[in-house]
Amino acid sequence: MSGVKADWIAVDWGTSNLRAWAMSASGTVLAEAACNEGMGKLTIHGFEPALLKLIGDWVDGPVQVIACGMIGSRQGWVEAPYAAVPCPALPNGLVQAPSSDPNLQVFVIPGIKQATPADVMRGEETQIAGFLARNPNWDGVICLPGTHTKWVHISADEVVSFQTFMTGELFDTISTQTILRHSITGVEWDDDAFQTGLSDAMARPERLAARLFSLRADGLLNDLPDGVARARLSGLLIGAELASAKPYWLGQQIAVIGEGALSKLYVDALAAQAAPATQVHAGPITVAGLTAAYRRLKG
Amino acid sequence: MSGVKADWIAVDWGTSNLRAWAMSASGTVLAEAACNEGMGKLTIHGFEPALLKLIGDWVDGPVQVIACGMIGSRQGWVEAPYAAVPCPALPNGLVQAPSSDPNLQVFVIPGIKQATPADVMRGEETQIAGFLARNPNWDGVICLPGTHTKWVHISADEVVSFQTFMTGELFDTISTQTILRHSITGVEWDDDAFQTGLSDAMARPERLAARLFSLRADGLLNDLPDGVARARLSGLLIGAELASAKPYWLGQQIAVIGEGALSKLYVDALAAQAAPATQVHAGPITVAGLTAAYRRLKG
Repeated sequence: MSGVKADWIAVDWGTSNLRAWAMSASGTVLAEAACNEGMGKLTIHGFEPALLKLIGDWVDGPVQVIACGMIGSRQGWVEAPYAAVPCPALPNGLVQAPSSDPNLQVFVIPGIKQATPADVMRGEETQIAGFLARNPNWDGVICLPGTHTKWVHISADEVVSFQTFMTGELFDTISTQTILRHSITGVEWDDDAFQTGLSDAMARPERLAARLFSLRADGLLNDLPDGVARARLSGLLIGAELASAKPYWLGQQIAVIGEGALSKLYVDALAAQAAPATQVHAGPITVAGLTAAYRRLKG
Repeated sequence: MSGVKADWIAVDWGTSNLRAWAMSASGTVLAEAACNEGMGKLTIHGFEPALLKLIGDWVDGPVQVIACGMIGSRQGWVEAPYAAVPCPALPNGLVQAPSSDPNLQVFVIPGIKQATPADVMRGEETQIAGFLARNPNWDGVICLPGTHTKWVHISADEVVSFQTFMTGELFDTISTQTILRHSITGVEWDDDAFQTGLSDAMARPERLAARLFSLRADGLLNDLPDGVARARLSGLLIGAELASAKPYWLGQQIAVIGEGALSKLYVDALAAQAAPATQVHAGPITVAGLTAAYRRLKG
């Protein structure tokens, strides 16, 4: 570390990864750090040591930490109960995590829940808050692609409703844990095959389970290239999601927040449906959301 | 073993299991045996020893073995090339497996392939042949539920077309390898939840990925009982399959061949769609199909 001392610290602590930013009081990023000590790999006694290992060098006296993500779940450091829709992306209800280090004051942002259909988010609400902080009075639909992709309806600065699709997790599981793992072995990617899968699935989304096995049979009978199988699987899953999420995105202003390559697939797929979407990079947006929460804490 | 000597031996050798029947020349089952030395667990030098370990006591001089299943795949004992539809369920083309035991003559039944949409079967063709041997001149659609469920259109004693759904494998993978494993932990089953999942999926089959995550959120927010989550997942997946397979089963005579509990779910689900189906137990039907192949071999 380079002698950076943080005025406060922003933390995004998900199931798989821990990211932190040393922040100035005015909201400038002074330094950042990351490790793979995600919430899912730790037990209750491991959270504070893991955090201190990552950010200890930035701490020089009492410091406030604002954290979002699965760290606030029941299995996390402290449970930050869900706020119920409709609500602001950053509802009141920061929860302080128990800490044995007198310098640390760790606050966790609550997730958001929906009763019908039952749904939850943790972490995405902070990205949404960051996006809205940068785009005041924005109404429309935010798509956050990932392991569990969210479609979120925003109106009058509130989260009105949302729906989660297990698309990313299905892709990972199907391509590595089922018989399709024999047909999807490398890292290639075929754009045309993605488009084919996408349009097949949008036209007849109910055929998913049959089309999955076709990928295997095509591999056996026609030596389907790996990149074609992978891209077609992705197209099939994203196509089925877009077909189902159509009531969300049709005729709406759309923003897609996420990592570059995956977000680009969604933006292109939406464009092919004559639905233009703005692509927003996740990293800075998360910091903007954590900053908004910090500012509210400071009043 | 009880001193049984087989006139010939029937074998069903799939990826996970090996089953064998000691048969009389007239087609009576004299004894049966099974073990978990499936094709997937063995390499090329392991097939003959595994078979002899299971059936050796039945062998007293030269004996013919008729085998079906994945043992005839490229990774099996000997590759029995696929016959192409339209074709009889038992097309010509038994392939003899190399054997070092002078008493053993092992013949493997070929699978069936379809060019468009690409599809393959290995093992099911023998069950179909057994069913048709017992039900001459039967026309209609045969459903064979399992890891990879098949829907097979039969006309004039031929397999005309078929389609495979990965429903069973998706159920296993989703319930054990995704976040839903936290919501599906026991062995309970709720019939009403199965019906709910089934009718939801048949009405809006494209919503599958969203409904999957709803199961998790319902577990978090509403303490959804395990048996409800499991049965609803099963209903969602089978409902999506039935919606997609509707062109197969609508207005057709239907037979469901498989193990009891799973077949019953399909029969009940079809009944709810006003599509009556005959339930056929898989075990005797497989032996009947192997017997039909043996009789043809003997001319």
